Amino acid sequence: MLKAVMSAGILKELIEVVSTLVDEARFKLSDDGIVIKAVDPANVAMVSFEISSDAFDSFEASDGEIGVDLVKLNDILSMSGSDDVSIETDDGKLLIKFLDLTYAISLLDPSSMRKDPKIPTLELPAQIVLSGDEFRRAVRAAEKISDHIALGVEGKMFFMEAKGDLDKVRLELPEDKLISLKSAPARSLYSLEYLKDMSKPISKADEAIIDLGKDFPVRISFKIAGDAGNVEYLLAPRIEAE
Amino acid sequence: MLKAVMSAGILKELIEVVSTLVDEARFKLSDDGIVIKAVDPANVAMVSFEISSDAFDSFEASDGEIGVDLVKLNDILSMSGSDDVSIETDDGKLLIKFLDLTYAISLLDPSSMRKDPKIPTLELPAQIVLSGDEFRRAVRAAEKISDHIALGVEGKMFFMEAKGDLDKVRLELPEDKLISLKSAPARSLYSLEYLKDMSKPISKADEAIIDLGKDFPVRISFKIAGDAGNVEYLLAPRIEAE
Amino acid sequence: MLKAVMSAGILKELIEVVSTLVDEARFKLSDDGIVIKAVDPANVAMVSFEISSDAFDSFEASDGEIGVDLVKLNDILSMSGSDDVSIETDDGKLLIKFLDLTYAISLLDPSSMRKDPKIPTLELPAQIVLSGDEFRRAVRAAEKISDHIALGVEGKMFFMEAKGDLDKVRLELPEDKLISLKSAPARSLYSLEYLKDMSKPISKADEAIIDLGKDFPVRISFKIAGDAGNVEYLLAPRIEAE
Repeated sequence: MLKAVMSAGILKELIEVVSTLVDEARFKLSDDGIVIKAVDPANVAMVSFEISSDAFDSFEASDGEIGVDLVKLNDILSMSGSDDVSIETDDGKLLIKFLDLTYAISLLDPSSMRKDPKIPTLELPAQIVLSGDEFRRAVRAAEKISDHIALGVEGKMFFMEAKGDLDKVRLELPEDKLISLKSAPARSLYSLEYLKDMSKPISKADEAIIDLGKDFPVRISFKIAGDAGNVEYLLAPRIEAE
Repeated sequence: MLKAVMSAGILKELIEVVSTLVDEARFKLSDDGIVIKAVDPANVAMVSFEISSDAFDSFEASDGEIGVDLVKLNDILSMSGSDDVSIETDDGKLLIKFLDLTYAISLLDPSSMRKDPKIPTLELPAQIVLSGDEFRRAVRAAEKISDHIALGVEGKMFFMEAKGDLDKVRLELPEDKLISLKSAPARSLYSLEYLKDMSKPISKADEAIIDLGKDFPVRISFKIAGDAGNVEYLLAPRIEAE
Repeated sequence: MLKAVMSAGILKELIEVVSTLVDEARFKLSDDGIVIKAVDPANVAMVSFEISSDAFDSFEASDGEIGVDLVKLNDILSMSGSDDVSIETDDGKLLIKFLDLTYAISLLDPSSMRKDPKIPTLELPAQIVLSGDEFRRAVRAAEKISDHIALGVEGKMFFMEAKGDLDKVRLELPEDKLISLKSAPARSLYSLEYLKDMSKPISKADEAIIDLGKDFPVRISFKIAGDAGNVEYLLAPRIEAE
């Protein structure tokens, strides 16, 4: 059971974060809030998302799970403007109310959905903290040249590199241009396809924490919904051809 | 013969109202202004439009008919900005002048065009008056769920309903949220394809008058061009499957 | 060798002017600045472009030629915002730096590129000077009707005319609506495809100088980059069918 009222903006942020990887998600409900874990169909990226009940104007939930069609919910919310939205489970349906409108969409059967991924605990030696916006700019700069992006740390500097057949781009951000840096030799290659989508919600965060290693997954952590929502993306590395 | 000067905005409104249903229209001209009646190719919807000579900065016309390509005229007006436009018949052509430009487009032969529809007189028991903007929002809310929309009155309330295979949306506007309501049991199903297009010009009107019955056509009346233009749409109902 | 710093806007203007006709260009470098001459693949239009070293914040160049992929360079500059950009040749590469980014793109071999066109000297009897914006409006007005546009002078008036199968548009600008007019009988037909693209950079110039004759090429001259850049387009006429 779920019955909650929130600003439409918060619900849209939640959907944006998770729909980067999946179209349908299993919401784990409890008194404390909502937890969503998902892995993309190709098993390359994971998201772990928690939002506290504090993020809502009102929140009641009993322990349980519901399956939600994120694409449909997002489409409906495009009608809400910035008004408050109420969502409520009701006999296999999710009622979504705002202004004078009531939508009822079918819930999905959580047992028929893919199991929650086990998020691995990774020891990643380097950590960069920078503005989400700056991170997005790095990703967009790489897109001009390649489908892949290398992220790394050299000395007191975070770098991004992308190479095409003939062309190259490199971004260097020394420690003083970052919010903080835990330096350790690190460099891994990632698919831009995933980072491009992830960088949209990341760009809205004041701080994005990037944990990196050598040919290891990258972990990107940031807050949404005025710090009441915690997001952690994990993205597997690609083998570097060189 | 027609020779008139008007703000480009008024001519664009006129075209938008009629081109919802047809690409070419027969303009009936007289001293009093212009009358256009048209039915869409599938015979599902009709428009009856009258604009008084008062809407124009200057207006001269002798009794007669001209056939106008609305799509071409609209395309040309996209060049006019908000300037005044002069239109004038001239030997089988329509001259359209604004700023330093003179367009001459061929008039269509009115006798080769489809006959004016006979607009039926319908006794429709329920009447809702609401802002055109609110009406458009109802139509757009339904589009998220279905290709059809039910409009009706229950007690002191106007409602809209749309049903997909699994999902549903309902909007309820009680009397105090409406400009006025003449209550009578009414409910009919309509194609959203038509209402979607009609709702664009309707949305600009302060007041839209909706006349409804049980499985009857809907009549939607509103004013454009600062009350000098009268529009009446008539849309046939669909058979409700249930 | 080239090493220069400039506002991103100036570099974007330069690219826009030349990429109207070609995707790759040969930059002739000297102490004085950059000269680019290019002819489109169909041999219908030419551009001659000179930009003085004064347009740059700093400029060093030794005499020589480099081949530049304008499409790639333009794509990269979309990341630069309005920041200053540094470009620098380096061992067969062009380094493009702004903010914390360094792009390295391959230079093209100038000897493998098409030879510079010889820009013919033409005596054109009529000359119209008007705002670039007004010129663009004339071109856009013609597009509604045809793929071709006639430009000409009759008495003390510049005119534009376009004819479709059934429709026509004419624009007349008498001398007092122009910046200046050197009158002489002139009328030539041109392809709108070329003028459409050319009219974009032209529209940003305060003054565009149009030199016309009877069934002769048109020469359009204007300045960019705060008068430090000189552009001359030459466009061959079409045979008028009438």
